[in-house]
Amino acid sequence: MQVLIAYHSDYMHTQAVADAIVAGAKAALADADEVANVVLKQTVDVGLDDMCAADVLIFGSPVHMGSMAWQMKQLIDSGSKLWMAGELEGKIGGVFATYGGYGGAGGGVEQTLIALHANFLEHGMLVCGFPRSLSGYAYAGLHWGLAVRTGNEEGMPEGIDEAALLAARAYGSHVMETALRLK
Amino acid sequence: MQVLIAYHSDYMHTQAVADAIVAGAKAALADADEVANVVLKQTVDVGLDDMCAADVLIFGSPVHMGSMAWQMKQLIDSGSKLWMAGELEGKIGGVFATYGGYGGAGGGVEQTLIALHANFLEHGMLVCGFPRSLSGYAYAGLHWGLAVRTGNEEGMPEGIDEAALLAARAYGSHVMETALRLK
Amino acid sequence: MQVLIAYHSDYMHTQAVADAIVAGAKAALADADEVANVVLKQTVDVGLDDMCAADVLIFGSPVHMGSMAWQMKQLIDSGSKLWMAGELEGKIGGVFATYGGYGGAGGGVEQTLIALHANFLEHGMLVCGFPRSLSGYAYAGLHWGLAVRTGNEEGMPEGIDEAALLAARAYGSHVMETALRLK
Amino acid sequence: MQVLIAYHSDYMHTQAVADAIVAGAKAALADADEVANVVLKQTVDVGLDDMCAADVLIFGSPVHMGSMAWQMKQLIDSGSKLWMAGELEGKIGGVFATYGGYGGAGGGVEQTLIALHANFLEHGMLVCGFPRSLSGYAYAGLHWGLAVRTGNEEGMPEGIDEAALLAARAYGSHVMETALRLK
Repeated sequence: MQVLIAYHSDYMHTQAVADAIVAGAKAALADADEVANVVLKQTVDVGLDDMCAADVLIFGSPVHMGSMAWQMKQLIDSGSKLWMAGELEGKIGGVFATYGGYGGAGGGVEQTLIALHANFLEHGMLVCGFPRSLSGYAYAGLHWGLAVRTGNEEGMPEGIDEAALLAARAYGSHVMETALRLK
Repeated sequence: MQVLIAYHSDYMHTQAVADAIVAGAKAALADADEVANVVLKQTVDVGLDDMCAADVLIFGSPVHMGSMAWQMKQLIDSGSKLWMAGELEGKIGGVFATYGGYGGAGGGVEQTLIALHANFLEHGMLVCGFPRSLSGYAYAGLHWGLAVRTGNEEGMPEGIDEAALLAARAYGSHVMETALRLK
Repeated sequence: MQVLIAYHSDYMHTQAVADAIVAGAKAALADADEVANVVLKQTVDVGLDDMCAADVLIFGSPVHMGSMAWQMKQLIDSGSKLWMAGELEGKIGGVFATYGGYGGAGGGVEQTLIALHANFLEHGMLVCGFPRSLSGYAYAGLHWGLAVRTGNEEGMPEGIDEAALLAARAYGSHVMETALRLK
Repeated sequence: MQVLIAYHSDYMHTQAVADAIVAGAKAALADADEVANVVLKQTVDVGLDDMCAADVLIFGSPVHMGSMAWQMKQLIDSGSKLWMAGELEGKIGGVFATYGGYGGAGGGVEQTLIALHANFLEHGMLVCGFPRSLSGYAYAGLHWGLAVRTGNEEGMPEGIDEAALLAARAYGSHVMETALRLK
């Protein structure tokens, strides 16, 4: 199985989350004896051929000013040619976001995940949410996918909780297990 | 395969759409030689046991004041017990909406479909969108699912276009074909 | 100034928040020497005449299954007659939500506030968000309005923080001050 | 009154809409004998000082892959410094989008407008929707703002309807009239 995990990261937080997703994905594919190639790239390094080659795509972004970072949007906009051709239809997707936690619930994290969903849905893909039964749900699960807080209750940066990284790992595994159900 | 299609309808429009989805679903299941039971119910008649029994759930609502009708929300809220127990996790969902077309794009139809998605995602389900390759996409497809306009450009009621009913039938088939991919 | 604050509450949390908003609203109106009538009602007790009489409307709901409680949606749907007649156009609105905090960010609180906004916007009203400069922002502010968490990090009920009630009070005052700017 | 209208445009459609908004804004300000300076700029030409200088900000974007163009998001992300400083708090905003009409309702136009709202709300601004009483509502009004379709029912480009340009002009006037109410 060919897997593409694309992310934008400013301060290494989103990259740390992406690394944990990769670990979870590889573990699940190894458990299933699936020959796999998991590719991790920053958005600026992703080409349309990377998207076409993948059976599973996972996109992640920090929340900037209430929605995904423009660098992720730039990648998504580049995919309009693939949409015209229906190249990604029927593939599996997963989504994740990091957010600083400004405001009681981290303003814009839902909107970010919903927008990442929308892109994959527009391509005719199926998108995996974060089910309540996955470990780490209370720390970093939202219906739509993985949501990792990087700030404390006062909105100050505090890094990523270990429980959130476990949730990231669990989500990486979950998306792969769902993809395997569809083979 | 056990299928539940639940809808609220005030003026028979949403019901007509639901009927077309049922026809499409049955056709796809017959094509696949799948023994099937497709249950169509108004929201007020749906019990928690109906949801638990189904392998595939399709929910639809008219857009009222910019979001789903309260009658559909009442059904969804009743499902919180199932969420606590994780009863619907891993099932397949589909969503549809009818909208009068007030405003250039029928105000709230996206929000209605996104809210229907959110409910299924919260239950840990996979939700089928409406891919561009399905017939009727230009008339009644949105990324998230089926969206049928029942008013004209001035926002006056005009009933449902035949092209939209074909889209509804195509969507019913598509959701079933996706569910069969997961068996 | 005539003010209507309408809410649905199951476990008294949303009611406690509504009470704090009322206190903040009254304080701001008293400071401005504005003769005021602040009416607080559960959704089931609100009539269309209450909505028409108000200069300012504030609606609040708990997040149930990822969106507003059906009881609030029922009130909103009843307002479609007022929408037809344009009765609420130009009035000022505010919105609030309580959420259990299941999932890293309390799944659905943004969607709930956005849906409450959408209703007021559909009526042609102006809606006040929760600016960063208000006290309590880090605890209970989201762009769209007030968002009060009632569960702890594990998603278990723990009641409402004092800082959140101060945010509620500040928001009640802010909505009134905005309404006074428009006189 | 200082007004900034910022937009991104690929094929002149969004620019034509922006021009009509400018005309409507100027007309309303002239009617009110308000000394005005209405600045129209592409997103790449907008600086933070333009945003700070404006009393009223109107942002518009085409819908690309279901949400705002990355060029508009880039402008919005650049505004995070202003958010930290609270520079835009209390100002008035308006939003608009153009969409091709792919899918029955033009996939993503609501999401685009909601995201543009969210940015202004995060800055602590008040955002004007498109009330039902404005001319052109049935053609180009959505609760959140102006939404102009540039494709036909089959999703093919067909340019902008005259009724939509009238709606754009009406919206430009409406945002100014609201700003004048707040002085």
